Amino acid sequence: MYSFDFKKRVRYAETDQMGYLYYGNYATYYEIGRVELIRSIGLSYKQMEEEWKVMMPVASMEVKYLRPIYYDEEITIRTTIKELPEKFVNFHCELINEAGKLVNVAKVRLCFVDMNTMKTCPLAPAPLIQKLQEIFEQ
Amino acid sequence: MYSFDFKKRVRYAETDQMGYLYYGNYATYYEIGRVELIRSIGLSYKQMEEEWKVMMPVASMEVKYLRPIYYDEEITIRTTIKELPEKFVNFHCELINEAGKLVNVAKVRLCFVDMNTMKTCPLAPAPLIQKLQEIFEQ
Amino acid sequence: MYSFDFKKRVRYAETDQMGYLYYGNYATYYEIGRVELIRSIGLSYKQMEEEWKVMMPVASMEVKYLRPIYYDEEITIRTTIKELPEKFVNFHCELINEAGKLVNVAKVRLCFVDMNTMKTCPLAPAPLIQKLQEIFEQ
Amino acid sequence: MYSFDFKKRVRYAETDQMGYLYYGNYATYYEIGRVELIRSIGLSYKQMEEEWKVMMPVASMEVKYLRPIYYDEEITIRTTIKELPEKFVNFHCELINEAGKLVNVAKVRLCFVDMNTMKTCPLAPAPLIQKLQEIFEQ
Repeated sequence: MYSFDFKKRVRYAETDQMGYLYYGNYATYYEIGRVELIRSIGLSYKQMEEEWKVMMPVASMEVKYLRPIYYDEEITIRTTIKELPEKFVNFHCELINEAGKLVNVAKVRLCFVDMNTMKTCPLAPAPLIQKLQEIFEQ
Repeated sequence: MYSFDFKKRVRYAETDQMGYLYYGNYATYYEIGRVELIRSIGLSYKQMEEEWKVMMPVASMEVKYLRPIYYDEEITIRTTIKELPEKFVNFHCELINEAGKLVNVAKVRLCFVDMNTMKTCPLAPAPLIQKLQEIFEQ
Repeated sequence: MYSFDFKKRVRYAETDQMGYLYYGNYATYYEIGRVELIRSIGLSYKQMEEEWKVMMPVASMEVKYLRPIYYDEEITIRTTIKELPEKFVNFHCELINEAGKLVNVAKVRLCFVDMNTMKTCPLAPAPLIQKLQEIFEQ
Repeated sequence: MYSFDFKKRVRYAETDQMGYLYYGNYATYYEIGRVELIRSIGLSYKQMEEEWKVMMPVASMEVKYLRPIYYDEEITIRTTIKELPEKFVNFHCELINEAGKLVNVAKVRLCFVDMNTMKTCPLAPAPLIQKLQEIFEQ
C-alpha cells in the first residue's frame, strides 16, 4: 500500500451557484491526486504517454459526496494504491477539508492503452509495477 | 418508470489531449439529462430552487466508461427514474453515440436540501413525487 | 458578412457561487457559435482537422461582459464573420438573453495551423474562403 | 505598481484534443493570479465577499495567446496591479512557461458589486485601496 497527500485550493471557476464545489469538478481532484502520486514515486504520467506510448483512460468511478466543499478551502487529496496494478489500476481517493473532516471518497479504476495500436494493454507498464513493488516491500 | 432522451454535442472544451471527452465532463451530461427530464414532466429545477427553496446536491455517483466519446459526436443522454423519490432520488443515465452504441452508464443519487435551514429534507418535494406518480401510473 | 444564431442553455456546471455564468465559460459559447456557423455553411470543423489537417488555435480574444447571465437561461449565440479570412479569421460574437437583451460581446481571432508541420498557414483553407465568398456575394 | 507570482501546473482536465491548454481555461489562471495577489497583501477575496459583502464580477478581458501551453507544464502566473483601483480594478496577467518564455498576456478589468443592493459600487472597498496605497508607496 502506498499513499500520497497533495493540496489544492478550491477556485471560483469550480464552484456552482449552490456555493459548493460542483460535483463534476471532483474528478479533476482525483486526477491531480493520481498524477502527483505517480510523480512522488519518481515517474511521470506525461513520460508514460510520451516515452512509453501508454495512456490511462478511466474505466469506472465510484464517488461518495459526504459533505460540501466550499470556495477557497485548501483540500488535502489523499490518494492510495492498495494493490499492484495488473490489467487495471485502482486509485482510492479521500478528500479532507481544512477542518480535518473527510468530505469525499472515491475509487477510480483506470486501464492502460497502447497508443500505437489503441488497444487495451494486458498489463500495466513494467516500470510502474516494478516501482510500486519496491515501495510496497519497504 | 420514466425515461427521457436529450441530445448534446461534444464540444472542444470538453475533450482532452487523448482526443476523448474528459472523464470529469460526463457529470455535466448527467446534469443535463436530469434537468431536461424534470422539464419534460412540466416542472423545472430552477423553479425548485427559486420557488420551493429546495436544492438537490449529489450524494453519490457510479460511472462505467464503456467506450470513448469523441469530439463533435451528438450524444443521446437517456435518463431514467425507476422508483419514486423518497429521501433520495436515483437517476440512471445511459449515453449512446451516433452509431447507436451504449458508451457510458451511470447512476447518480441526489438528496434534497431545504435552502432555508440548509438541512436535508426527509422527503422529496410533494409536487415532484405527485407528478412522477401520475406518470408512473399511466 | 454572414451571421448565424445558435441557442444554448446555461447549465449548473457553468455557474459560479455568484450565481452567474462564470466568466471563463463564455469561451465555450464562442466556440459553439463558430463551430455551428461553419456547420451552417456546409463545412465542419471536425472535417477541417481530420481531412484537411488544419486546426484553428485562438490568437486573441476581446470580451465585454455587459450584464450577468444566469442559470437555465437559453442564450442566443449570434456569430458573425465580417471579412473573408486571410491569415486570420475574426469571429464576432454577441450573446443575447431570453429577454432579448445583449449581454456580452466578443471578438475572437484565430489562425490556421498545418497539423503536419505544426506551422501557421499563410492563408485560410481554400474551401473555407471559397464557401464564404459565395455566401458574401449572395 | 505591485506584482505577484504564483505557480500552477497544467492538468489533463484543462487540455483539449489539440494537446494544448484550452483557450477558455486561461481565465481560471487569471482568477488564481488575482486571488493569490490579494492574499499576498494580507487580504482575501473570500473575506471581501463574506465580510465586506462586495463581489468582483469581470467587466472586460483582453487576451493574447502567444504560444501554446502544454499538459503538465508548471506555469508562472505573474499578476500586476499598475494603478490604484477606483470604480474598476485592472489586473495585468502574464503567463510564463517552464522554459521562461512569455506565452500569454491578458488584461482583466473587474468592478465591485454591493451584494446587499446588487448595484455597482462607485469605488473599490477602502481597505483594498489603502493596502495597495501602502504597498505602492514603499
